[in-house]
Amino acid sequence: MTDDINQILDDQETDVVVEAIGGIEPAHQYILAALEHGKHVITANKAVIAIYLKEFTDAAEANNVKFYFEASVGGGIPWIQGLEKALRIDNVNSISGIFNGTSNFILDQMSRNGETFVKVLKKAQELGYAEADPSADIDGYDVANKLCISADIAYNIDIKDHQDLPIFGIRNITCSDVKYFQQKGFSVKLIGRTRQSGNKFDYAVEPALFLNRTLEANTPDNYNLISLNGDTIGKLDFFGQGAGMLPTANAVIQDILDIKEQKSHLKRNFDKRMEYCPELTKGNYLVRSKTDVRGLLKNYELSQEGAYLMVHQIPVGEMHQIMKVVLKADKSAFMVNVPSQGAVA
Amino acid sequence: MTDDINQILDDQETDVVVEAIGGIEPAHQYILAALEHGKHVITANKAVIAIYLKEFTDAAEANNVKFYFEASVGGGIPWIQGLEKALRIDNVNSISGIFNGTSNFILDQMSRNGETFVKVLKKAQELGYAEADPSADIDGYDVANKLCISADIAYNIDIKDHQDLPIFGIRNITCSDVKYFQQKGFSVKLIGRTRQSGNKFDYAVEPALFLNRTLEANTPDNYNLISLNGDTIGKLDFFGQGAGMLPTANAVIQDILDIKEQKSHLKRNFDKRMEYCPELTKGNYLVRSKTDVRGLLKNYELSQEGAYLMVHQIPVGEMHQIMKVVLKADKSAFMVNVPSQGAVA
Repeated sequence: MTDDINQILDDQETDVVVEAIGGIEPAHQYILAALEHGKHVITANKAVIAIYLKEFTDAAEANNVKFYFEASVGGGIPWIQGLEKALRIDNVNSISGIFNGTSNFILDQMSRNGETFVKVLKKAQELGYAEADPSADIDGYDVANKLCISADIAYNIDIKDHQDLPIFGIRNITCSDVKYFQQKGFSVKLIGRTRQSGNKFDYAVEPALFLNRTLEANTPDNYNLISLNGDTIGKLDFFGQGAGMLPTANAVIQDILDIKEQKSHLKRNFDKRMEYCPELTKGNYLVRSKTDVRGLLKNYELSQEGAYLMVHQIPVGEMHQIMKVVLKADKSAFMVNVPSQGAVA
Repeated sequence: MTDDINQILDDQETDVVVEAIGGIEPAHQYILAALEHGKHVITANKAVIAIYLKEFTDAAEANNVKFYFEASVGGGIPWIQGLEKALRIDNVNSISGIFNGTSNFILDQMSRNGETFVKVLKKAQELGYAEADPSADIDGYDVANKLCISADIAYNIDIKDHQDLPIFGIRNITCSDVKYFQQKGFSVKLIGRTRQSGNKFDYAVEPALFLNRTLEANTPDNYNLISLNGDTIGKLDFFGQGAGMLPTANAVIQDILDIKEQKSHLKRNFDKRMEYCPELTKGNYLVRSKTDVRGLLKNYELSQEGAYLMVHQIPVGEMHQIMKVVLKADKSAFMVNVPSQGAVA
């Protein structure tokens, strides 16, 4: 037991360091120092990996040690391994999923019990699912980190080079929103998704509607559901506990055993050049705002009961840009992606 | 290209043999001969593995080669690897799943379109999902083989020592059955499941009802959904294409790469002694028969509209034994497991 990082770094008998501090600094410095001292490093810290994955990987390579991070995305779900395995022989053309258990718990409780966002968030905090500052979970940053890591691996890129990727959270969702979506046969989920085409990729974190007979709509409580689509493997979904003490510890121990058994993971340099393309994917959206946003939109109609604008086939990046403008005038504005097979308005 | 197995066995340059013949013999002899000639063997042949897994594993061990079979259960789903990985540090206390795409396609089509079993089976045969002799798929033997292999690995046993395990298929399901289950808020699926407790395990292949808001109920078309429950990892589900040319080939190539990269799989001797216990799990069942079966049952009631007997909390093994007797008098009799949270009758 020590609170001195140098004692760990200088200990010749320590060959594996598990970083469980969280946050960016000093985790970043400690991980890097451990790798440079010739120690394998394992971490569940998605925030620091989302930024420094390439730096850590390069340092591990240079020092002939391993940097593993299965627990960082999907907790106990063997997602990183599943993705890396698929990539060994397949082209993974898209990834999507429910990456955040806290937001899923909140949306699930709102749907089941008709409770308000604020009330359910409080319950989540009491249960230990949500932090005192819940922003990372409900504003989409936690999903964004996990999606970054997944896309980095899938496309062999360093996504942090790309600024200002579209992220829209669930802070503004109301009971009436949830009830309206339910009446139309949908469940609402906070999702992350990315897709590649040629040398371009898209990327979005946003609330999205799913028809009731989909796996996403039926992912309950604080569970995660993460999917990939590969050219030969087709759609492959992983479902399980995305967080929690035991599942997270399980994933960390798995990584330790991989090091012990010399099971190497997929080698990635994260040096491929790809362009983030805000127009690569178009989508339908329901937009709710107290201000008149019709001047910003082209192809839209008013929903039957008048509370929403249904926006048709707008580039995902453009829709997110518009919502940034809308939020400045109306802090309570909300939008949700609508699948093309479901006519909501 | 050769049709002479000895040419393959005697070829010094061949170090990996992929068996894609199917069936028990000569696949069994060929696999064994290849292992004894010092060649790694990969197969997708669940029927032969369900019987000879221990023999093949022992032969591989004795000849210092690998015997891998990811494609045999769940096709392109990394199920065997996921199960083996979980077992590395966890106690897997139960396994359950939709292991057979053909029967899932049939039940899904009957539910969606209200078509008869015979009509949908014909469609499945035209699409190439079902064989000319569909018995393995619809009578549960394919599921039984996959469940055998999964239980062998999970419990480190040789399940083929256990005779007469409960298997009940979907051959007798009717449009009215499906419609009745739907009215009560359920989907029907053909599932395999096993659970261990102490030195005992149970095992059953049977039609089962699932509430509409479960992952099982929402597994469409010819997809598979296979789940494990571990002490630390909790519930972990794998969803994907359980069969088909590309997903199966993908899994075979993955095994070839594991051999190339010297990634060893979990070591199992399949020599643990466990007792199959027909009373380990109790269940509720709906039973439909033209003959009067009430003399065989204790705790039951007639369903509202009179077509079914609802049997409460009967040992699973006993229920299957009773149905064997019933089927002798009424070849069209049907039964389905009902979850305890759902009151059907």
